[in-house]
Amino acid sequence: MILRPALLACLLASALPGAVRAATPYRSQQQILDASPSSDWRTLDPTRTLYLQLPAGRVVIELAPQFAPEHVANILTFAHEHFWDGTSIYRTQDNFVLQFGDADGEDPAKAKSLGTAKTHLPAEFHRSASGLDFKKIPDRDGWAREVGFVDGFPAARDGADGKAWLAHCYGTLGAGRNNADDSSIGAELYVTIGQSPRQLDDNITVVGRVVKGMELLSATPRGPEPMGFYEDPKLRTPIISIRLASELPAAERTPLQLLRTDSQTFRDVAESKRNRVDDFYKRPAGHIDLCNVPLPVRTTQG
Amino acid sequence: MILRPALLACLLASALPGAVRAATPYRSQQQILDASPSSDWRTLDPTRTLYLQLPAGRVVIELAPQFAPEHVANILTFAHEHFWDGTSIYRTQDNFVLQFGDADGEDPAKAKSLGTAKTHLPAEFHRSASGLDFKKIPDRDGWAREVGFVDGFPAARDGADGKAWLAHCYGTLGAGRNNADDSSIGAELYVTIGQSPRQLDDNITVVGRVVKGMELLSATPRGPEPMGFYEDPKLRTPIISIRLASELPAAERTPLQLLRTDSQTFRDVAESKRNRVDDFYKRPAGHIDLCNVPLPVRTTQG
Repeated sequence: MILRPALLACLLASALPGAVRAATPYRSQQQILDASPSSDWRTLDPTRTLYLQLPAGRVVIELAPQFAPEHVANILTFAHEHFWDGTSIYRTQDNFVLQFGDADGEDPAKAKSLGTAKTHLPAEFHRSASGLDFKKIPDRDGWAREVGFVDGFPAARDGADGKAWLAHCYGTLGAGRNNADDSSIGAELYVTIGQSPRQLDDNITVVGRVVKGMELLSATPRGPEPMGFYEDPKLRTPIISIRLASELPAAERTPLQLLRTDSQTFRDVAESKRNRVDDFYKRPAGHIDLCNVPLPVRTTQG
Repeated sequence: MILRPALLACLLASALPGAVRAATPYRSQQQILDASPSSDWRTLDPTRTLYLQLPAGRVVIELAPQFAPEHVANILTFAHEHFWDGTSIYRTQDNFVLQFGDADGEDPAKAKSLGTAKTHLPAEFHRSASGLDFKKIPDRDGWAREVGFVDGFPAARDGADGKAWLAHCYGTLGAGRNNADDSSIGAELYVTIGQSPRQLDDNITVVGRVVKGMELLSATPRGPEPMGFYEDPKLRTPIISIRLASELPAAERTPLQLLRTDSQTFRDVAESKRNRVDDFYKRPAGHIDLCNVPLPVRTTQG
């Protein structure tokens, strides 16, 4: 990992002495992906994909209506009515979250109109685990009884018949709220940019995750005020627009495919990270945390 | 957490219904720190403190000679001889690490002289746990049998008489290496800027951690090349200098104190995050990950 690219190419084909799973030749993530069948990939659904357009480029977000149907419906309304155009990233707190939307949203004299969006929604912190295709991983987790993936999202549940919720990992998109659990409407959104703040799990409504363009968000200069706010509007990052992908002409969409988290390829990638057997790693961890599991994305030709 | 500062001030003094530990009134981290005795704080030792001077400001690093004595000794030589002055941050990989030092270090024709520093060191991935004041935390961890803190550093061990090593959390400073375990000399250093890459634990030599100024590193634009390298030197962030604090006049030092990780105040802070009982959190997690435990730092008047 600290290697220069030229050296990195020299991946070891044979297993190291004493390595776990020496019976199967070790394959790197890239080797596993290169050999994957196309059926292990899914194309992003444009009716639940947002494009957040910043001066530096486009951030692609996948929404999670199966966990937060009311919030996602409101978000689709906001996007359709161009609510976020001309708003900003008005908060970036190091090792935690950045937040965007209407910086004046809490000032009735200055707040933007919410258009036809709903002004009150129920909290959608969790849902029933029943009916979800929850793919458990075997790894220990301190925050939840069971962790795994649902439709490409890192998730947790307290049992197959209990509650399930989306986990806060790097790139998670949530709906900012005040103290009341039902005080979010999806107008003010935050993205995790640091160590996974899993303490927020089942404490706030998660609405999706960033699938491409995190580097445009994570390098945002941190805000000088407490909690990373920028009181000076000039320090905020302008949001040019947020659009639903299906509302753009096909030629203007970003053609992405995501590795299906219910695929063998995905399980193989996780295992390749759980027990690394290459020239660099001397001691396979035998473990991976939910938020360290890679979620591969690739660009396709339309 | 998503609140505006004005609202954040309204912390709830009384416990929520059904909250954990309702018998003791909940105190926020700030309330705990405000009430802490001065003996629970320690002043950074200038003989093991580095100042990394960037155009945007100073990053303060605490070294860990108790875990990597040979590497730290070499680093002191490099700092004393001004090895890093005029070098750069030449790699920033999103959600992983940034790396700095001599971008041409692997090109014998262009590499800077290493001065009197040693050109070979033993790997210092771990040490004996014996003799360490290891303060275990009770929380589950997937990567190691026991986790906790040693002298202010997040650490792990496989038992009181076994091996101990420093953990890769946000802000961890390590010595970049090539494939050979003994290929690092402390000239090329990396800092974790994303989700804790604990798979590196006991696989590379950790030499310290950033105690102030992480926001100057974490917002560095990500490198366009694979693994976040910047082939174009103009994209690299210049390093003005790296100095040992004790080699600067006292008036030019940054006067910092760190909360002692063997103090009751530290245990109380961790518990305040493990079981949050305030207006915002509706469901205390009852857990905290090693890399989520706050490591409070305060500025003193010299």
